[in-house]
Amino acid sequence: MLKGNLRGKDFITTQEWDYDELESVLDLASEIKKEPGKFSSELQGKSLIMLFFNPSTRTRLSFEIGMTQLGGHSVHMDAEKAWIGKGSESIKDTASVMAKYADGISIRIFPNITDWQYGKSNEVVREFAKWAEIPVINMECDMFHPCQALADILTIKEKKGNLSGKKFVLSWVYHPRPLPVSVPNSALLIATRFGLDVTLLHPKGFELDEQIMEWARSNCESNGGSLEVTQSMDEAYRDADVVYVKAWGSLKHYGKFEEEKKFRVDFRDWICNEELMELTNKDSIFMHCLPIRRNVEATDGVVDGAHSVVYDEAENRLHVQKAVLSLIM
Amino acid sequence: MLKGNLRGKDFITTQEWDYDELESVLDLASEIKKEPGKFSSELQGKSLIMLFFNPSTRTRLSFEIGMTQLGGHSVHMDAEKAWIGKGSESIKDTASVMAKYADGISIRIFPNITDWQYGKSNEVVREFAKWAEIPVINMECDMFHPCQALADILTIKEKKGNLSGKKFVLSWVYHPRPLPVSVPNSALLIATRFGLDVTLLHPKGFELDEQIMEWARSNCESNGGSLEVTQSMDEAYRDADVVYVKAWGSLKHYGKFEEEKKFRVDFRDWICNEELMELTNKDSIFMHCLPIRRNVEATDGVVDGAHSVVYDEAENRLHVQKAVLSLIM
Amino acid sequence: MLKGNLRGKDFITTQEWDYDELESVLDLASEIKKEPGKFSSELQGKSLIMLFFNPSTRTRLSFEIGMTQLGGHSVHMDAEKAWIGKGSESIKDTASVMAKYADGISIRIFPNITDWQYGKSNEVVREFAKWAEIPVINMECDMFHPCQALADILTIKEKKGNLSGKKFVLSWVYHPRPLPVSVPNSALLIATRFGLDVTLLHPKGFELDEQIMEWARSNCESNGGSLEVTQSMDEAYRDADVVYVKAWGSLKHYGKFEEEKKFRVDFRDWICNEELMELTNKDSIFMHCLPIRRNVEATDGVVDGAHSVVYDEAENRLHVQKAVLSLIM
Repeated sequence: MLKGNLRGKDFITTQEWDYDELESVLDLASEIKKEPGKFSSELQGKSLIMLFFNPSTRTRLSFEIGMTQLGGHSVHMDAEKAWIGKGSESIKDTASVMAKYADGISIRIFPNITDWQYGKSNEVVREFAKWAEIPVINMECDMFHPCQALADILTIKEKKGNLSGKKFVLSWVYHPRPLPVSVPNSALLIATRFGLDVTLLHPKGFELDEQIMEWARSNCESNGGSLEVTQSMDEAYRDADVVYVKAWGSLKHYGKFEEEKKFRVDFRDWICNEELMELTNKDSIFMHCLPIRRNVEATDGVVDGAHSVVYDEAENRLHVQKAVLSLIM
Repeated sequence: MLKGNLRGKDFITTQEWDYDELESVLDLASEIKKEPGKFSSELQGKSLIMLFFNPSTRTRLSFEIGMTQLGGHSVHMDAEKAWIGKGSESIKDTASVMAKYADGISIRIFPNITDWQYGKSNEVVREFAKWAEIPVINMECDMFHPCQALADILTIKEKKGNLSGKKFVLSWVYHPRPLPVSVPNSALLIATRFGLDVTLLHPKGFELDEQIMEWARSNCESNGGSLEVTQSMDEAYRDADVVYVKAWGSLKHYGKFEEEKKFRVDFRDWICNEELMELTNKDSIFMHCLPIRRNVEATDGVVDGAHSVVYDEAENRLHVQKAVLSLIM
Repeated sequence: MLKGNLRGKDFITTQEWDYDELESVLDLASEIKKEPGKFSSELQGKSLIMLFFNPSTRTRLSFEIGMTQLGGHSVHMDAEKAWIGKGSESIKDTASVMAKYADGISIRIFPNITDWQYGKSNEVVREFAKWAEIPVINMECDMFHPCQALADILTIKEKKGNLSGKKFVLSWVYHPRPLPVSVPNSALLIATRFGLDVTLLHPKGFELDEQIMEWARSNCESNGGSLEVTQSMDEAYRDADVVYVKAWGSLKHYGKFEEEKKFRVDFRDWICNEELMELTNKDSIFMHCLPIRRNVEATDGVVDGAHSVVYDEAENRLHVQKAVLSLIM
């Protein structure tokens, strides 16, 4: 069934995998979702080291339980500042030894670990991948959250079928803290990769990384979708098929929390509510990667409403990750 | 063998399970204890999420190893203040997603997590149970410790056989810290449920929750036992068949530590010692849920003496929990 | 194949195991390394409780993954100061209960946990072993690191074949912190046990425990090796077959960090570099237990150089531990 041999491949961003490879993962994820029992010995005796520089619920649970359901085992390591600061063991040594014991490494590392220097956390993931002779999976760095992206696109395919001509809105919303851009980056990349007509909605000052935007535009060219950027909520939500809501911090004030707060606070009314959802297509879906701050990012009415597919989306994390693990480990 | 189908049922307090259901668990626990190997694939591929808002040794070990021995897996999560305070993810969202990944959730949450407002920790457990479409097990909240209760009654049945007419003393003892009432509550409920003649011994001011007392009295009526309350150690210990020792805090001064300390310190001599045990029946048993502060709650002579069954009692945690997990997951 | 029945035996120091028993472990480790799949059900359904009073990477990963590869399960417990200070549960109670649930206990405990009183951490391990009716494995205390010793000697045998007449240098090197002596103690004991000609190299003031030295000398007598102590780097490195580099603290200033620092800082130039390695035999091997502080303990040139076997040595931790676990549990 698989269109390519993915054994040993790192998964750091969807952007570095071929379209066919991504399709393979999604096909396998759907099969695993339908008949989980068929895959219960897939990773028998295999071990995944999960490095959490930052704590996590959903990611940790879905990876750990996913490994179990495939017959394997995962080791949960609280990594905090280990392997990064002065006086630490080199990542070369750590990764080389890990590769002697385990069959895969997955890493969660947020911008705070690398002093809010955009791209630095991603470099740590890549440093592990460079030295480890086993595949490395990005469980979210400061740039990418590729497993979330896969869960997102699987959910959209399940709910919307053919994606061509469907309107996907990626909407910035307010949050009291400046969250990483990994999720919007990844959502933008995957949506343009799968040919959706994307509208990126955010206030001025919350532009995404220009490199990501470039990739997104090039994705559109290759895959037949489109990309528009707007500051108009009405325009964005109108006739949308998919509303993807996410809070993120301003890259212009990255890591300068007080300065950012003053800037951000003007946009407190950027919340996804029932009125905005009224503008969308009748059968549109509301997505959020969770955790969501209710009645700040979106109202209870939206989160618990008929459009919402947030729990299905969260569930799909399990299935896509099991697919990725099965294919690369 | 099972007298009812318990699949999917929450286990928050023994009081909410029928007598027959509790008997089913105890029967199965005995069978598992005798032939553990027979049950080694019982929960193959199934996962239990263990949420520890407070750390634990015995509970964590017995649940985690129990799951392993049944062929399943448990995820150990340090939950601390997560999912409770302001700005946290809603319990609805957390529990709903957990139910997408796992087959059960078990929760340990002490009164300190919910600001020493009696009953509030129990509400958190019930909130998880409300939203999770998978069974929830109480690993001890501020009101109940039902798994301890099952281990206790199994131990008593093993050692004493027919429980009718047996004298069970639940004895308050001193401890420098005001401990939760979950264990005495649960011991009282299970002992009255199984028809023991219960003597509750404590100094004035350490009364248990009136709702629990009411349930206990009603248990006696239905099950043929009796309940007496006394402040006289001599009277309580005399002719006892089972001595169950436990320290707990005064509900009247709940959460007011300095005030409580002044009050509690007068009862420093409330310790279970060899002289008191001399008053009991020759073949009486000494029980404690552990951990015990030796020579404060009970003397070494008692804990290590001939009456003591504390390690058997601790062992039975494993067997009853395996039975519960097998039946509900 | 096994020369003795090791079931149930504690593993606290290699010194307390017979030579034949150690050989059994090494033979089994080699077999496991060659055909890991043959042993995938060896510990089916068995559980190891790993108590970490101090955090760990290599040890934790190799034990946890080792248990998994043998079909068993390990429980990772952060123990910190639990079971040691005032007001804690007695080790008797803890160990007795653990023995009711699990099939083995492994313990990591550094000198800081027992106030830098040399030998006290080892006593904690022995206290657990005294009360637990299941085998206890020392994952490094303040005196011994027996699993490291086994990995070391396996690596040496793999690389050097017949050990008779081979020159083994145990070289002190500088490190900004006073590290435990468990690794040099254990390396000295295992090297003399297996008949190597040992040269112990360190500055004056960094002598090892006299009891260890006595055991080492007695090992030489029984096993045909030799032991010399020198302060001359040149003399030590010349014609060496094995260079084993390790930083350790001065027992004379044990736990007095400021005092030790003043003393230690004079020896900052004690680093293993390419020039020193030039003095060794052409096919000599460079060993270090890791983590290593690069360019402080040894230069990058050495750690990444042709002599270095540090990753093989780390890998062998997995294999020897799987052998020990298989034999005693």
